[in-house]
Amino acid sequence: MDDIEIDAVATPELDDPVLIEGLPGVGHVGKLAAEQLLEECDGTLVRRVYTTEFPPQVTVDDDGVTELTCAEFHAVETEGADLLVLTGDHQAATNAGHYRVTSAFLDVAEEFGASRAYALGGVPTGELVEEYTVLGAVSDASLREELEAVDVQFRSDEPAGGIVGVSGLILGLGERRGFEAACLMGETSGYLVDPKSARAVLEVLQERLGFEVAFDSLEERAEEMEEVAGKIQEMQDGPAVGDDELRYIG
Amino acid sequence: MDDIEIDAVATPELDDPVLIEGLPGVGHVGKLAAEQLLEECDGTLVRRVYTTEFPPQVTVDDDGVTELTCAEFHAVETEGADLLVLTGDHQAATNAGHYRVTSAFLDVAEEFGASRAYALGGVPTGELVEEYTVLGAVSDASLREELEAVDVQFRSDEPAGGIVGVSGLILGLGERRGFEAACLMGETSGYLVDPKSARAVLEVLQERLGFEVAFDSLEERAEEMEEVAGKIQEMQDGPAVGDDELRYIG
Amino acid sequence: MDDIEIDAVATPELDDPVLIEGLPGVGHVGKLAAEQLLEECDGTLVRRVYTTEFPPQVTVDDDGVTELTCAEFHAVETEGADLLVLTGDHQAATNAGHYRVTSAFLDVAEEFGASRAYALGGVPTGELVEEYTVLGAVSDASLREELEAVDVQFRSDEPAGGIVGVSGLILGLGERRGFEAACLMGETSGYLVDPKSARAVLEVLQERLGFEVAFDSLEERAEEMEEVAGKIQEMQDGPAVGDDELRYIG
Amino acid sequence: MDDIEIDAVATPELDDPVLIEGLPGVGHVGKLAAEQLLEECDGTLVRRVYTTEFPPQVTVDDDGVTELTCAEFHAVETEGADLLVLTGDHQAATNAGHYRVTSAFLDVAEEFGASRAYALGGVPTGELVEEYTVLGAVSDASLREELEAVDVQFRSDEPAGGIVGVSGLILGLGERRGFEAACLMGETSGYLVDPKSARAVLEVLQERLGFEVAFDSLEERAEEMEEVAGKIQEMQDGPAVGDDELRYIG
Repeated sequence: MDDIEIDAVATPELDDPVLIEGLPGVGHVGKLAAEQLLEECDGTLVRRVYTTEFPPQVTVDDDGVTELTCAEFHAVETEGADLLVLTGDHQAATNAGHYRVTSAFLDVAEEFGASRAYALGGVPTGELVEEYTVLGAVSDASLREELEAVDVQFRSDEPAGGIVGVSGLILGLGERRGFEAACLMGETSGYLVDPKSARAVLEVLQERLGFEVAFDSLEERAEEMEEVAGKIQEMQDGPAVGDDELRYIG
Repeated sequence: MDDIEIDAVATPELDDPVLIEGLPGVGHVGKLAAEQLLEECDGTLVRRVYTTEFPPQVTVDDDGVTELTCAEFHAVETEGADLLVLTGDHQAATNAGHYRVTSAFLDVAEEFGASRAYALGGVPTGELVEEYTVLGAVSDASLREELEAVDVQFRSDEPAGGIVGVSGLILGLGERRGFEAACLMGETSGYLVDPKSARAVLEVLQERLGFEVAFDSLEERAEEMEEVAGKIQEMQDGPAVGDDELRYIG
Repeated sequence: MDDIEIDAVATPELDDPVLIEGLPGVGHVGKLAAEQLLEECDGTLVRRVYTTEFPPQVTVDDDGVTELTCAEFHAVETEGADLLVLTGDHQAATNAGHYRVTSAFLDVAEEFGASRAYALGGVPTGELVEEYTVLGAVSDASLREELEAVDVQFRSDEPAGGIVGVSGLILGLGERRGFEAACLMGETSGYLVDPKSARAVLEVLQERLGFEVAFDSLEERAEEMEEVAGKIQEMQDGPAVGDDELRYIG
Repeated sequence: MDDIEIDAVATPELDDPVLIEGLPGVGHVGKLAAEQLLEECDGTLVRRVYTTEFPPQVTVDDDGVTELTCAEFHAVETEGADLLVLTGDHQAATNAGHYRVTSAFLDVAEEFGASRAYALGGVPTGELVEEYTVLGAVSDASLREELEAVDVQFRSDEPAGGIVGVSGLILGLGERRGFEAACLMGETSGYLVDPKSARAVLEVLQERLGFEVAFDSLEERAEEMEEVAGKIQEMQDGPAVGDDELRYIG
């Protein structure tokens, strides 16, 4: 196997498509947002990207059938713009791998004629988030105004540590190839998978690109996560009654 | 030395052989099962695979003679099918290495005309196993029925984390080359080497492929392991008498 | 992307320039010294060096605009000598990467006609430093005298563990290419960013090369660090009054 | 810089030389033995081997002069045999690196006409060693007798974990190229640098190859180590008097 192998599943004509990246990261915000897009829209799988940078792993589906770990591109046509949505379960394993894999992703996007890209992700706040602000970063200053117009916030030197992983390189390597690239980062505690933050990011994206999707799946997941968070809270607060026996444990 | 070097020790004619992979993994289930096969059957060493992905290591035998770490293929003729049994002491050291090494293994299998493969392994349950169920996963849905017929169980989305390492890639990369590949995973606690789980896997395999081997060696090892487990249990329970002084230690 | 990509931003004529390396390291001494040089002098950005050995990362500036992580060379003309100042936020990620990246840095220096190099850094003492001595090491014994003349100290077998990272290889690989290379190491506790140590290194350098820069920025940073150190000291000493409640915590 | 660069310092004619490898390892036994050989005999530096697998590091000598980390071959003529002694401060950083670096070492040995090799090292016993037995392992059974004749012991399946690192590969890769290779392993506790074990290994080697060296330097080091060991013992035993206050510390 080559370091990177790309399977062409379908090659529909797309009209100036926009690359939307949603790989795993902080709060799985980008991944949840991209997956929601695919669930609500009628997308077409167009490319599978296999790479020796991903773990040596197959996933097993409901029928016990395995599939080699890969990243996938789906073509999604919306009323606002054609999208090329990149999802998957993994980032690369090494520094050099991140560069190589992101280069391959940008190759695919270019092949479909994309020249704009949005990297979706989360930015950790370290505390409970009440209002789901979306922070932005852009590969070129000229892109800032149109994002501020849809309520994306820009804060001096944030995020402090820069943007790492595939999202960062979509901007960094993308710019070097002439992409107009932006990163949309939903604020999130950083401790839990955060569907609400994903929704905030998606709302910004659809306003920017002029399409609309339902949020049913994200809302369901948000309710699940609230249950989880509630249970964790309970465990931390301790039982309301009958905790006498527990007092002696720790 | 090249990244991978393959020594051709013998090249017997095999009739549609089945690749059986048993490298180290959870509970050493796959390795034990494959080694039992080699012990009971009259196999022929056909290939040695050396790779810079294995540790820089030689083993030392009873006579003090060293051998460079490698994986080995043995040809085994059974009444049911010709087997090509892959064993060894190591997996690869890196993600990319797993892909490269598994590709080399599949090259060898193809060279002998194999188009079917069984990856043998264990699946950790985290608790003591009473009944040794064998879970299955298949590279193609059409392979499921014949395994269910020999009591292999398929459970929705299990194993949860997918299948990793060479076993996973035998299915994942194997499928991409046209292999019919399945993984047989014996349930095992995950804490100890588990000859009983290996026996359960081997029983499924021989029923599926129509051969029979004795289990003497696995039974011996199972007895040894029970002694080990018994001693661990004893240590955890503490001494039957005279434990008064110990009470204050922990 | 190639493993290393070098963007030529400008190519001014330099007169026998001296390579000055200040990448991150112990106490950030070298980085602070090199950055101070760039702040005080009127330098020109001449090269950006991108490499897959750096983290997959973009920095975000005050305007929310991203830049792919890189190392930069600035040309600085001083009354004493032309300088080629190398700064950046990262070292390489692997052993082999350090060698490759340093080789690329030396390529750039050679391209501008440099044949002398100073690697700036810190040497950890493990305790509070009162007098900021600068230790030296040289690629060739003939270089020692001119450094001793500007109060650089040479101590038998120090630093004990040798010099690691890009600084070490500027000397090690530089020598193999015919560079006259020296390392100037400011003594520093090793626990904190140390602008005073950086100043000591810079004073030696300017005396050696015959130029003069102001130290305003390093002085400011030194004051900030003293505040930080003061607070840490306070925390360690505990509060002056009212510490009765705290007595029971630990 | 290439992955491996070999500087030819001198190329004397050697008569069927024997490769003696003494790189760092358990108890530094091999390294001490090889260094003692070089100190006592009048050797000639013949090759320096640089590799990106070694740390990015220069050593600093008594005069403050740096040298890029490398492994060195010295030619040593003894009354018994010509030796090609390999020493250095590092092993490789990766599995693949160990294979590549050892291959380069064997290339050098072949270039000088060597077809025999002794890898020197230690084998950890986990306890204080009273009698310094030397264990052996051989690339071919025919080499065993001549080693047993000089009191090298062979024990079934020892060392249990095989032989790792460059020493292991001198045998493993060496055999594949037609070298007659043996490993001489001095028993050592494994906790401390062990000059006595190094002496035991060297005594075996010189008896086998028919030469004699003094052990002055190893004896000095052994005395130093005994002082160190004595101090550690004292610290463990606690002070002979006045330990009342200490009783409450732990």
